[in-house]
Amino acid sequence: MSFPTRADCAARDAADPLFPFRQRFHLPPGVIYLDGNSLGAMPVSTPARLQAAIEQEWGHELIRGWNSAGWYTMPRRIGDKIARLIGANPGEIVVADSTSINLFKVLSAALRLRPGRRILRSEPENFPTDLYMAQGLIALLGDQHVLELHPGDSIIDAIDEETAVVMLTQVNYRTGYRYDMASITRCAHATGALVIWDLAHSAGAMPVDLNGCEVDFAVGCGYKYLNGGPGAPAFVFVAERHQAQFIQPLSGWMGHAQPFAFDTQYTPAEGIARYLCGTQPVLSMTALECGIDLLLEADLEQVRAKSLALSDLFIELVEARCAGHGLELATPREHDHRGSQVCWRHPAGYAMIQALIARGVIGDFRAPDILRFGFTPLYVGFADVWDAVDTLVTVLETGEWRDPAYQQWAAVT
Amino acid sequence: MSFPTRADCAARDAADPLFPFRQRFHLPPGVIYLDGNSLGAMPVSTPARLQAAIEQEWGHELIRGWNSAGWYTMPRRIGDKIARLIGANPGEIVVADSTSINLFKVLSAALRLRPGRRILRSEPENFPTDLYMAQGLIALLGDQHVLELHPGDSIIDAIDEETAVVMLTQVNYRTGYRYDMASITRCAHATGALVIWDLAHSAGAMPVDLNGCEVDFAVGCGYKYLNGGPGAPAFVFVAERHQAQFIQPLSGWMGHAQPFAFDTQYTPAEGIARYLCGTQPVLSMTALECGIDLLLEADLEQVRAKSLALSDLFIELVEARCAGHGLELATPREHDHRGSQVCWRHPAGYAMIQALIARGVIGDFRAPDILRFGFTPLYVGFADVWDAVDTLVTVLETGEWRDPAYQQWAAVT
Repeated sequence: MSFPTRADCAARDAADPLFPFRQRFHLPPGVIYLDGNSLGAMPVSTPARLQAAIEQEWGHELIRGWNSAGWYTMPRRIGDKIARLIGANPGEIVVADSTSINLFKVLSAALRLRPGRRILRSEPENFPTDLYMAQGLIALLGDQHVLELHPGDSIIDAIDEETAVVMLTQVNYRTGYRYDMASITRCAHATGALVIWDLAHSAGAMPVDLNGCEVDFAVGCGYKYLNGGPGAPAFVFVAERHQAQFIQPLSGWMGHAQPFAFDTQYTPAEGIARYLCGTQPVLSMTALECGIDLLLEADLEQVRAKSLALSDLFIELVEARCAGHGLELATPREHDHRGSQVCWRHPAGYAMIQALIARGVIGDFRAPDILRFGFTPLYVGFADVWDAVDTLVTVLETGEWRDPAYQQWAAVT
Repeated sequence: MSFPTRADCAARDAADPLFPFRQRFHLPPGVIYLDGNSLGAMPVSTPARLQAAIEQEWGHELIRGWNSAGWYTMPRRIGDKIARLIGANPGEIVVADSTSINLFKVLSAALRLRPGRRILRSEPENFPTDLYMAQGLIALLGDQHVLELHPGDSIIDAIDEETAVVMLTQVNYRTGYRYDMASITRCAHATGALVIWDLAHSAGAMPVDLNGCEVDFAVGCGYKYLNGGPGAPAFVFVAERHQAQFIQPLSGWMGHAQPFAFDTQYTPAEGIARYLCGTQPVLSMTALECGIDLLLEADLEQVRAKSLALSDLFIELVEARCAGHGLELATPREHDHRGSQVCWRHPAGYAMIQALIARGVIGDFRAPDILRFGFTPLYVGFADVWDAVDTLVTVLETGEWRDPAYQQWAAVT
């Protein structure tokens, strides 16, 4: 069976318009990093920018940094930059808190904007924190709502007049399955339901068109494809038409119309600023802004095309070279339904990933049986894919993953 | 009238056991920093520690940093360090999110633990975000509770059988008035109410004895006296006896019993970890840990004694040298009721503070009329106080604060 050679892959890298971006990231020697969907790599620009933020802006400016270094406007300024990546307008996004907290804000809004509708629909494979936050809110509101979970695309047929909100992650964290944002949003709106999209695995990985799809609310993550650093703050999108309709319950002073008037009564800011709550972690936000500034230099159509080419290549090479080892493709072959990752199921997946990591190929494992490989086109190339598969072949053919050391779970996997 | 000379002050610095700590902070030349109660100064150790976190732990370890660099255990590890500063036990504090978000968590718990009691009591001068968060939660719960505000110590007489929770900031952000934590907590418990203390202006500034006072819940800030950097993450304390009784509603995956089992159903972690929600900003937390590590080297009894000596000196010098300029002391003279700041009222306070800042004496203004000066004993000395007052004398006697440039409000004041 014929498949591309390493030389073929190297030739594709040489012709790749995105290849120069690789030099803009720090990639440790000896590592092929296929986990940018969990934690993005560090932009080369970040350390110096952070050092300036620490030594100059904090150390020297001290409290004056809130004005002189622009800390006060960061949530909106960075939000406006993210807007350019995901089809939103300026003034529709703020950066703040975590994805989980932001989901709580918009879920509160969506349920309140659809009184009398008691069902919140999602899918059982949605990222668990999204389900947990919904469960927490429902319990807090006295169990007047229910969370119903529908596997895969069966959610489309379930959307009905009792549905208050449809809440989905556009690209499934485990399988890489990509939902059709436009058609599901249209379905929801046809019955009067609202939609919340979690863009954790799509913002920065592919073009997203929130307003083109008439999305109501969205949240997303700063530390994956936005390369914002570990635990980077998250973002929240509220379509302009919904902003004035609701006061979200995490009504901290940074969302007040006049935070420094120190009124005793909360009065929400106009616009998206009311989705802010407390004071934001400036150093982590500074790193996030570096990652986003770099991404804004890239053409997301090119990013998407290369992502699909990389994942096609990975599937082709694994199927050609690892046949007979029991790996079962968990990611859709159809481009329209694929995110920027490729996953395989195998009962010994955890040990196989550990053995790969020991050889410098970093993917990750998602329980119970998923080997997950993310393709971040700004810093992963075609030859990397070839080398990663070559290492996988070695791990499988030697059987070295059977080493007991690779069976031991770590706290974070 | 006789008052201490600058030489007297310098002699007190020379005899001060905390004086060597000053070298451990970066203080910009030409600045006397009396705003550590708003944003603490930068420890000298922080830039190198952050650089290692960025370049080595993120840049090189990448996703492996969650285990190898201890990111996963940071919220609990740093929480245990804060516990040593405020009289809590290991396992009673986590670092996470913002003060506002953490208040929402414990306020939800307190209201749920006192069903049938509908009143939440606080004071009108409490830091506004605390009041706003309570208003947001009450509205979300369908207005079954009310927030009643009682000025100063009148709250003690208001606590009754209808009171679910008493929520106060131990040291008032504006006046520096310090509540008696032990007696108010005792009063609340006598009627069956619970207490939430906000330690924003006390943690790290003075000894606090949460368990000695039998406090139920507390929250606090990382960027003031803990010197964690702009917008540093906050902390939340839940007395061990209350931890298992309630599942807080911001039930994100990091508070799950097994986050990496990826269950669809939320099951809270045992203990304080259930007060975590989403993924935390690792870079900002790393800076916070530096600040706390430094503070742990100091004796908080010495810190408190010096804080009172500094503020006594400041009051004495201002009263001796600025008489006739209309400054009215807003901070209690009694040590038991004083935090680590001294405030004066003046109708032109905003302009006076701007004129002081222009001369390198950084205090801040709090609407409508408060000039606020914070005394952070690890890096402020007695001669600094003398010099600050000397500058204030100049600003008042020249009348330079009347310059129109000093009347213009900045976004953050």
